[in-house]
Amino acid sequence: MTAPEQPVTLASRRIHQGWVGLRIDTLRFPGRRESTVEVVEHPGGVTLIAFDQEGRLLLVRQYRHPAGRELLELPAGTLDPGESPETCAERELQEETGYRPGRLERLGGFYTAPGYCSEYLHVFLCTDLVESRLEGDEEAIHLEPASLEEALLLMAAGEIEDAKTAGALLLYLQKRGSLPPH
Amino acid sequence: MTAPEQPVTLASRRIHQGWVGLRIDTLRFPGRRESTVEVVEHPGGVTLIAFDQEGRLLLVRQYRHPAGRELLELPAGTLDPGESPETCAERELQEETGYRPGRLERLGGFYTAPGYCSEYLHVFLCTDLVESRLEGDEEAIHLEPASLEEALLLMAAGEIEDAKTAGALLLYLQKRGSLPPH
Repeated sequence: MTAPEQPVTLASRRIHQGWVGLRIDTLRFPGRRESTVEVVEHPGGVTLIAFDQEGRLLLVRQYRHPAGRELLELPAGTLDPGESPETCAERELQEETGYRPGRLERLGGFYTAPGYCSEYLHVFLCTDLVESRLEGDEEAIHLEPASLEEALLLMAAGEIEDAKTAGALLLYLQKRGSLPPH
Repeated sequence: MTAPEQPVTLASRRIHQGWVGLRIDTLRFPGRRESTVEVVEHPGGVTLIAFDQEGRLLLVRQYRHPAGRELLELPAGTLDPGESPETCAERELQEETGYRPGRLERLGGFYTAPGYCSEYLHVFLCTDLVESRLEGDEEAIHLEPASLEEALLLMAAGEIEDAKTAGALLLYLQKRGSLPPH
């Protein structure tokens, strides 16, 4: 572990403020020239590990416009203004899967693209699920439960291509003692 | 697996074009109202698993401005224009760690934030490393090798908070047969 190299922010220019924000900061690190860095601003969110009554991992398939196609992912979502990660986890699980969690356990968290984006995702294990389908406001999200082993095979086969899904599964496998050196 | 729901892009407005791009697309999905989506455009890149002669996983620590602090991550980097993922992997490993890989094996890949960003990362296992330090152009990146077990403990302890690092380690553990049901 080395001493932190904190820069001074000399200037900050706003480019966009919408669902995400974009700003360009001018930085000076100790002993180095000025540099600029683009920062995509994101409120952060949650990624959810949950199993149905049959023990199948809840996965969702939806069209992802930046990818230009549908992707298979863990349920996830973005924090509403002022919302706690726990409240967001309960809300998003219900919206995307039709289940409410009776219990949440935080497994960890991670940045998705820390070189240029502030998004941080909290990973929760959701248990004691109760079916609770919302009427109306149907999100274009299709539930595709799979066993954990199937999900891992889908990952190996390139059928799941989502970093938060892979990362959250690692945290989950670690939590339950399925990783080396165990 | 359900039928794909491909939208029609009715309009696309450019907000920014820099190291990343930002555009706002107006979409119409079959049977639904128009919607707009912000797309952060990113050229994509690589994330690298490599072990030194002592069998320690190469991790790097660097200041990440969007996080406001230093993070510990796998070596990674962005594709230069026209660059293949393999060439990018060789270049980034050398720039960030001072090693050149004699051999690359693709373990998979994933989107980092497919809800709003096009970034796709190819994950490579780099082997047959040869020391090859670059002169000058020192990146402010500190090499912190750790055993694989140590790296997994750092993840569990919240000392590694990076989705691509967690996701790539999952792909690696899977490749070497360390995950269930094995």
